[in-house]
Formats: sequence, structure tokens, C-alpha cells
Amino acid sequence: MPGSGKTYKIAVIAGDGIGLEVMPEGLRCLQAASKKHGFTLSLTEFDFASCDYYEKNGKMLPDDWVELLKPFDAIYFGAVGDPRRYPDHITLWGSLLQFRRQFDQYVNLRPVRLIPGVQSPLALRKPGDEKIDFWVVRENTEGEYSEIGGRIFTGTSREFVTQETIMTRIGTDRILDYAFKLAQGRPRKLLTSATKSNGISITMPYWDERVVEMSKKFPDVKVEKYHIDILTAHFVARPQSFDVVVGSNLFGDILSDLGPAITGTIGIAPSGNINPTGEWPSLFEPVHGSAPDIYGKKIANPVGMIWAGQMMLLHLGETAAAEDMLSAIEQVLGRGDFSEITPDMGGKGRTEILGRAIEKAILDM
Amino acid sequence: MPGSGKTYKIAVIAGDGIGLEVMPEGLRCLQAASKKHGFTLSLTEFDFASCDYYEKNGKMLPDDWVELLKPFDAIYFGAVGDPRRYPDHITLWGSLLQFRRQFDQYVNLRPVRLIPGVQSPLALRKPGDEKIDFWVVRENTEGEYSEIGGRIFTGTSREFVTQETIMTRIGTDRILDYAFKLAQGRPRKLLTSATKSNGISITMPYWDERVVEMSKKFPDVKVEKYHIDILTAHFVARPQSFDVVVGSNLFGDILSDLGPAITGTIGIAPSGNINPTGEWPSLFEPVHGSAPDIYGKKIANPVGMIWAGQMMLLHLGETAAAEDMLSAIEQVLGRGDFSEITPDMGGKGRTEILGRAIEKAILDM
Ligand SMILES: CC(C)[C@H](C(=O)O)[C@@H](O)C(=O)O
Ligand SMILES: CC(C)[C@H](C(=O)O)[C@@H](O)C(=O)O
Repeated sequence: MPGSGKTYKIAVIAGDGIGLEVMPEGLRCLQAASKKHGFTLSLTEFDFASCDYYEKNGKMLPDDWVELLKPFDAIYFGAVGDPRRYPDHITLWGSLLQFRRQFDQYVNLRPVRLIPGVQSPLALRKPGDEKIDFWVVRENTEGEYSEIGGRIFTGTSREFVTQETIMTRIGTDRILDYAFKLAQGRPRKLLTSATKSNGISITMPYWDERVVEMSKKFPDVKVEKYHIDILTAHFVARPQSFDVVVGSNLFGDILSDLGPAITGTIGIAPSGNINPTGEWPSLFEPVHGSAPDIYGKKIANPVGMIWAGQMMLLHLGETAAAEDMLSAIEQVLGRGDFSEITPDMGGKGRTEILGRAIEKAILDM
Repeated sequence: MPGSGKTYKIAVIAGDGIGLEVMPEGLRCLQAASKKHGFTLSLTEFDFASCDYYEKNGKMLPDDWVELLKPFDAIYFGAVGDPRRYPDHITLWGSLLQFRRQFDQYVNLRPVRLIPGVQSPLALRKPGDEKIDFWVVRENTEGEYSEIGGRIFTGTSREFVTQETIMTRIGTDRILDYAFKLAQGRPRKLLTSATKSNGISITMPYWDERVVEMSKKFPDVKVEKYHIDILTAHFVARPQSFDVVVGSNLFGDILSDLGPAITGTIGIAPSGNINPTGEWPSLFEPVHGSAPDIYGKKIANPVGMIWAGQMMLLHLGETAAAEDMLSAIEQVLGRGDFSEITPDMGGKGRTEILGRAIEKAILDM
């Protein structure tokens, strides 16, 4: 196969805990895919965004992190944090959330997909149930995650705190534009918008208004809206019927955990933090955290990391390689070989064994 | 059985759509329970809080609604609204949400319970799975549902909207106090707090702080906290392990739909809007709306309305009668007689047939 012949510059940040253990497996599979499909990944590893780095330097990131990372085509990220060493507001807010904002990764994208061999907590009874396959698109820079607000009458019975939700026209329109385009490129062309305009009376009606406005530009996309409360119920009751689901920062956060949870894949789900303009590097990470409790045992499931690599290839435009990676994951998990799969999935495999099995499957595709 | 001999003054508001159809069945079952357990329900029906009333009067409620309803021990409420006639912000905000605020019904309480005969979308595989039985306690007056905020730069590309979340010491402490007491009265004494303090950096850490403070007064209650995103995942993966779950107005709203959804009971779930001080009447309603699409067919499932009546009796202190009502619901649904159960549950029954079956079961207890 000739392949694109391109070279992509990837910043590799393993972070903390099992991030350090799953990263080599992710890289192994990416290298296999790149070899097979004729493109090159030029990898540069960084040790910042980790508790060790913080311990040595008193900060999570070097002062020139923006210039350092800007030239990369993508950031491949493991996991950060260890609450036993430093609180999350230092480690997470000091790295991952900085990246999202500074690199204007305004899309958080997560697949919800029933993977063969992964047991879903749902009772899948009807034919067609096995077809859960949709995307959750989350606004990733504003909304409910603002730092505007404060506390007054501290320590008295009149004490209260306030925090503002901010939805900008720019921020709302660009995430909707991304979601509409994603829906437009899929066979069913269905976009579900998460709202709560019956209860949250200013920001959420604005969201709805922008959805209506944006839908005029995409007449071929079917749009439906649900309030977040009942939408979570529909996720459980009829997950097969979703195609692309878009929500605010908070609603997207909730739905992109609930979605993988209903397919049983939350431990292996990937997440893309994407700047679609290409002006800044996008970041791809497994959803699972650094899991300090199992770190060192070398039993962490590497599939989230590998799947995140798969999303990175999709983003870079290496579609065929990405397809092979996803097929390889499905093939290996689907055969459910206990000597390969990790203990979280009921097997006896170790991180490296499962990583190598998927690597082999990619090469054999 | 002698019974309490008490008389309770109940305001009955059927509202719109199937609210009008299920109300008679709720009253039927309540009367059976009161007859059997020796207390009296003195009922007064009101026609406001309905689209018809709005059409005639140009408002959802009479001007003196507060004085009118204040003397009642409880409000038994059907369902309100019909988006084909008037938008929700007129009907819902003009009635139900007025009651919650004006009557300081600061607790929204909803059971999550696996009911025999009701098919859950979850795969219940392990022994013990059938023991899903917990309460969701939702703050019902403040938090994310504030009307403070606005829009600026309207119509330009700089346009943005803001909306404040307000958490007061009083509002937070009293809902936590209620939740801790509820947990304290249950065998497992476990309270789960929904938060998002890793992302929402002012209000949610404040919520966490008040939980820690309040927990000092309840040393026998075990407290755990989860971020709302992963908590929705745990609802799906291990619903058996919850006992009492407490959340802000928005988080409680989400969890109290998701909870019933995982047990398959969302169509029959009840909701209590409670003022625990007794200063104002509390309101009990089915979770389902007015369902204008099936109104008139007389096939609406009355169980939500009946179960709401059961919660009302619990609130009034008629515990034995409430127990009978719940057992009657479980007995009738559990036998799954297709001539009784309504089409939403796969049967051929009608609203009144199912209501009468439950009435009979109460009398036969
Ligand atoms: C109708 C809507 C405003 C309401 C809410 O969010 O409070 C409803 O979802 C509920 O839970 O009673
Ligand atoms: C760690 C936390 C702040 C983060 C978020 O809420 O964005 C996480 O839940 C995620 O989804 O990546």
C-alpha cells in the first residue's frame, strides 16, 4: 500500500500512574498502523503534566509550554493526577484544562459504540440492539465551566456563592457547526441537541435559538432536542436511535460518560479535544484517569489509549489506518481470549500482552 | 383497625391532558387506603393550573392562589401543560414552578425502585440485582434554576448570554439536612452526594464544603461523593449500591429522571415537592406530563398518580396506609395481567381498569 507518505509531529505526554503504562501500547499500535499505511509519526516525549514534574518544578508545565507544543500536529496524552499526592485542581486544572483552553480545543468528541466482547449493562434484547454507534460532541471551552463568580457574607447564615454560565455566539455557533457537519457526513444525518430550556431560563433558550438558526444552513440534517433529564433516560432506553448528540460543556461532559457507560466501555473509551481550525494542536486521551491504585501492577487496560490513537489518526486524515485500528480493537476484544484481555474485562492478560495482540491484529489486517 | 382518625385537607388539581384521566384513579386508591386505615381525606378540587383556565382567564392561577392553597395539608397534582396550546414557559413556569418556590418546597423527592412486572432496560444478572431501592433528593428552589443573567451585544458576533447559579448557605444546608436525616433513618445509612467540583470551580466546591460540614452532625451516616458525569455511569453500572442520593437542582433533576429510567419506571414514577417545615403545603405529582397525544383514549397509566398519592400519605405520616398502597401497586403490576395493565406496559387495560385493580388490592391487603 503506498499511503499518504506524510509525516506527523506528535507530542507524547504520558503523565501519571497508568498513563505511563498504557502509553507504550498506544504508541506500539500507532507505529504498526503507520508502518502498514505508509505514513510517519515523528514522536517527541515530554515529562511535564505529571505529579513528578510538579514535585521537581513547583508547576505542572514549563513556562514556554505554549510555544513548545504549538508546532505539533497533535498531542497524544496519557492521564494526569494523583489525589494522594496533589489535589486535582492543581494537576488537572494545571495541565489538561489549560491545554483545552489555550489551544482552543473547543470540541470534545467521544464515540459511543458497542464493542464485541464488552459486556454492556443494558439488556440488549431486540434485534438491532447491537447497533449502538454514535458520537457525543461537547462544547469544551465555556458554558458552565467559567471561573466568574464568588462568595459573599462568608461564614454567616446569609452566605452564598454564585457562578456564571457563559454562552457566547462564537462559542455556541462553532460547536453547533461542528456537530451539524459531523451529522451531515453520516448516513442517518440526525442531530440530537441536549438542552434544559424549560428550567434554565436564559442560557439554554439561547442554545436552542442558535440550534434553530444553525439548522437553516443544514437543511438535510434532521434535528431533535431533548431536555437533559429525559435525554439521559433515552440514552438508557433507546441508545440505538442516536447518531450525533451535541451539548454544552456540562451536558456534554455528562452524556459523554453516560454514553460509554451504557455500552460498558467507559474503562476503554477515548476522548478527542479538538481544535478543528488546525491553528492549534488537538489532544487525544483515554477517558480513564491515572488510576494510582492499580499503577505498577501492569494490568491496566490499554484499549482507551489505543482507541485515542485511532481517533488521532482520524483527525489527521489517515482514515484507512484508523479503520484498521478500530477493527483490530474489535477483533481482539471480540474473541475474548482470557490470556489476552486484562482483569477489568475478566481476563488474565497484562497491559503489554493486550497491546501486542492489538498490534498484531493491525499488522495482520 | 382503629387508625389515626385524623382528617387531612387535600387540594386536588388535575391540570391538563392525562392529568384529568389519572386523577380519579389516584383519588380512588387514596380513598380505599383512608377507609381501610381509619383517616379522612377532605378533598377540594380546583380547575386552575390548566390550559383551559388560562384560556378563560388569561393567567394560570387566580390572584389569591397563595391564600387559597396555604390552608391545605397537601396538594395532589396531576399534570400541566400542552405545548400545542401554550408554551411550557407559560404553563409550567406559571403554575408548578410557582408552587415550588412560593410554597418553599425545597425538597424534590423521588423513589428509584425496581417494581415487579416492570421491565428494566438494564441487564439484571447477578443475585441482588433486584434490590434497586433508593431515593433521589433534589434541591428544588435555587442553584442552576435562577433567573439572574442576561444577554449583551445582541445580534452581533460578540453576542453572549450569562446565567448565574446561586447556592445559598440556607438553601444548601437545609437540603443536605433533609438528605442526611433520610439516610440516617435507613438501614444502610449511605448518602451519595452529586458534585462537579473538578470542573465547576465555585459553586460545586461550596456544595462539597457544606456536605463535609453537615456530615459532622451525622457521624453515623456514611458519605460518598461523585462527580455528576461518572455518577450517571454508576447509576447504570451499579444501581443496587445507592441508598440516598442528593444533588443540586439541576443534578437532582437529571438523576431523578435517570434513576427511574434504569428501573424502567419513568412512566409510573412519582415526585414529591416537599416543604419539610410544614409551613406550606407540599405537592405530590406523577413525573409524567400531560401527554396530550394520548389524552382522550383513556389508556394513560395511572400508577404514577397513585404512587404520588402513596408518597403523600408517607408525608402526612400515614405510614401503614402508604405501605399498603405500595404493596398493592407491586402486587398488581407484578402479576402482569394483560387485561389490567395499560398499553405502555404491553397490556390491554385502560386507565380505570388498572386503577380499580389497585384499589381492590389495597382493600384486600
Ligand atoms: C418541567 C421542568 C421545569 C421540571 C424541572 O426541571 O424541574 C421537570 O423536569 C421536573 O423535574 O419536574
Ligand atoms: C476532570 C474534569 C475536569 C473533566 C471535565 O469535566 O471536563 C473530565 O470529567 C473530562 O470529561 O475530561
